[in-house]
Amino acid sequence: MAPTDPSTCHPDLTVPWSAPPGPESRIWVGPGALAQAQAAGPVALLHDRRLPDEWVERARQALQPSLVLPVRSGEAGKSMQEVTRLLSALAEAGLPRSGAIMGLGGGATTDVAGFVAATYLRGVRYFAAPTTLLSMVDAAVGGKTGVNLPEGKNLVGAFWPAEAVWCDTDTLDTLPVRDFRSGAAEVFKHGLLAAPELLDEVLPSQRSGAGLTQFSQRLPEVVRRAVQVKADIVARDPTEQSERAFLNLGHTLAHALETFTHQRLPHGEAVGYGMHFAALLSEAHGAKNLSGHTHAFLNWQNPEPLPRLSLEALWPIINRDKKADTQGPRWVLLHELGQPYLTRVDRALLDDVFRQWQRDI
Amino acid sequence: MAPTDPSTCHPDLTVPWSAPPGPESRIWVGPGALAQAQAAGPVALLHDRRLPDEWVERARQALQPSLVLPVRSGEAGKSMQEVTRLLSALAEAGLPRSGAIMGLGGGATTDVAGFVAATYLRGVRYFAAPTTLLSMVDAAVGGKTGVNLPEGKNLVGAFWPAEAVWCDTDTLDTLPVRDFRSGAAEVFKHGLLAAPELLDEVLPSQRSGAGLTQFSQRLPEVVRRAVQVKADIVARDPTEQSERAFLNLGHTLAHALETFTHQRLPHGEAVGYGMHFAALLSEAHGAKNLSGHTHAFLNWQNPEPLPRLSLEALWPIINRDKKADTQGPRWVLLHELGQPYLTRVDRALLDDVFRQWQRDI
Repeated sequence: MAPTDPSTCHPDLTVPWSAPPGPESRIWVGPGALAQAQAAGPVALLHDRRLPDEWVERARQALQPSLVLPVRSGEAGKSMQEVTRLLSALAEAGLPRSGAIMGLGGGATTDVAGFVAATYLRGVRYFAAPTTLLSMVDAAVGGKTGVNLPEGKNLVGAFWPAEAVWCDTDTLDTLPVRDFRSGAAEVFKHGLLAAPELLDEVLPSQRSGAGLTQFSQRLPEVVRRAVQVKADIVARDPTEQSERAFLNLGHTLAHALETFTHQRLPHGEAVGYGMHFAALLSEAHGAKNLSGHTHAFLNWQNPEPLPRLSLEALWPIINRDKKADTQGPRWVLLHELGQPYLTRVDRALLDDVFRQWQRDI
Repeated sequence: MAPTDPSTCHPDLTVPWSAPPGPESRIWVGPGALAQAQAAGPVALLHDRRLPDEWVERARQALQPSLVLPVRSGEAGKSMQEVTRLLSALAEAGLPRSGAIMGLGGGATTDVAGFVAATYLRGVRYFAAPTTLLSMVDAAVGGKTGVNLPEGKNLVGAFWPAEAVWCDTDTLDTLPVRDFRSGAAEVFKHGLLAAPELLDEVLPSQRSGAGLTQFSQRLPEVVRRAVQVKADIVARDPTEQSERAFLNLGHTLAHALETFTHQRLPHGEAVGYGMHFAALLSEAHGAKNLSGHTHAFLNWQNPEPLPRLSLEALWPIINRDKKADTQGPRWVLLHELGQPYLTRVDRALLDDVFRQWQRDI
C-alpha cells in the first residue's frame, strides 16, 4: 500500500484533547512578598543550596513545607541528573499528587524546580519565589521550565506556569552586585522590546556611568514594569507560536556563548553581549540608534571578557537554537525601539557583523 | 507580617494561561495500518531495539525518518537515564522544533518516546505505532507518557497526546503468545469497565479455556472496541480529574507487584492479578459475580507465579500510588459490571481480601 497522507485518510477513531486551561499566574512584587507565600496541601520546598539561610528560613515559616530539598546551584543544577535525583527524593518522601512544589532561588533553581513540578506524577502544582533580579523579571513568569543537555542550554523542558510568584525585592539587597547587574540585562531587554522608559531607569545617564542599583527605592516599580512587559506577551502567546519568540532578543548568541564557555559566563552577561550583537545586526538591516544603547549597557554591566571566539566555532551551537528550523537559525531583531521582528540573516552579513561586534566588546 | 492566604490577597499582576488545546488524536486500527503512517517535517523514529526488523523497515518506508534511534526494551527503557540518552541524541542530530517523534513498539517504548517528545525543546509533535496488544488498547491512546523511578512505576511523565496512532494488527501475528495474553488484560479491563461484550470476546467459553487469539479475524474489531472505551473516557476527562482514574482498575496492586518484582512481572500479568484483587475487594463491598470473571481470566492468561508476598511489604509502594493522597491510597472498584467507583478501603478489610486473593491465585 502506498503511504497515504493521514490528513486525507479517514481515521477509525478520533479523540479530542480538551485539557482544562492552565492556572492563572498571580504575581506579587515588593519588599516582604515572601512572607505572604502560602499554599494549600503539602509542599516540597526546592531551594538553591547556596541561598542565604535567612531566605530559606522565611520560606519555611511562610509555607511550612513537608519536605525541603537543596538544589545544586547555578547551571550545574539544571541537569537531567539533578532532576532525576530530585524526582526520586520526592517519590521517596511520598509527596502526593495533591501536593505542590515551591522553587526558591535564581532562574536556574526555578527552572529546574518548575520542570520537576511539570513531570513529577505527570505534573503537580508549582509556585516560585525568585530571589535574583534575573529570575524575577524573566525566569519565574511565563511557564517556561527547562534544563540543559551537554549539547546546549534549555534543550529540555515543559511549559508549566507557576500558580503564584512571590518576587520579594528584599532578597536583592544581599545579591552580589555582579548578579544584580547580570539580571539587569533582562530588564533592559524588556525596555528594548516594549518599554523604552525602562532603558532610562537602568541607565539614567549614559555618560555618568551611574545606573540602577539594588537599593533603589524605585526597584519594586522597575521590576513590576519589566514583569508586566513579559506578562503581556505571554498572555497573548503562551506557548511561543509567534510573538513570544521576541523575548529571545539577544538570546540566540547568548545561549551559544553560554554553551561555548561551559556555562561559566552568567546568563545576564551573555544576554548583554547578545543584545549588542542583535542591535548591530538590526542596524545592518536598516535600523538606527540601537547599538548606542546596548553598548552603553555593556559598559555599565562590565561583563567578564570572552575567550577567543569565531562564528565558525559557535555555528553548530547556534544551529541547535530552539528557534532554528530546517533552514537554519532565526534572529530577533528590532526595526526600532519597541518594534521587534524575527528573521533569517545572510551568513556573509553575520560574519561582517560578528567582526564588528568583536571590536566593540 | 503574618502569612496571608494568597487567594484573599490581591496580587500585583495576573497572567492568564490560555494554551491552545492539544491536538486531536487520530487513530487507525487494522491490518496494514503502519503503511499509512506519514508525517510532515523531519521525524525521529524511536523503536524498541528488539522489534523484528520487518516492522522497523515498514516504518522507515512509510515515514522516511531523518533519524532512527533504538530504545532499550521493556521497563528497563523507561528510565530517566534512557530518556537523557535519547534527548542528547536528538539534540546532537539537531532535530528542530518543527520536527516530530514517532514511537514504534510496545507500551514501554511508546511511553518513553512520548515523554521524550513532551520534553525535547519543551515539546514536539508525537506519533505512535504500537506493536503489542497492550500498547494498542491502552498505552498509545490518551496522552499519558511516563518513565519509572527506582521508587516506583510511572512516577515521572507528562500528558502529551499522540497526534496520530497507527495500530497495525498485523504486528500482533509475530508477538509472543505470552505477550498477547498479557495485553489481553487491558482488553478485559475495558470490558469490566464499560463493555461487557468484550469479556465474551476474550473468553467466549469460560469452561473450555479457549479464548481470543492473535490470529482471530475479529481482532481488529476487538481492538477498535477496546480503544473506543478508553477514548470515550479520555475525551471526557483528559487529565484525570475524575473518571479517568477508573482506567486504573486493577492497577494499584499491579504497579506494586511490578515494583516489588523489579519489573520482572509483565504489566498485563500484573493487571490480571490486580483485577482479581479489585473484584474480590468489590465483592467485599457488596458487589456480586465479579471475581468469577477475573478468576477465569487469570486461568486463561496463565501468568507467572508470584514470589512470596505480604501486604505489609507492598504497603509502602501502594502508598506511593499516584491516586494516593495524604489519607492513603484509593482503589478503583466496581458496583457491578460497567459501574466503577473510586474509594478508600479499610486496612483490616484489605488484609482479609489479600489473604483470600493469595489463596485464589
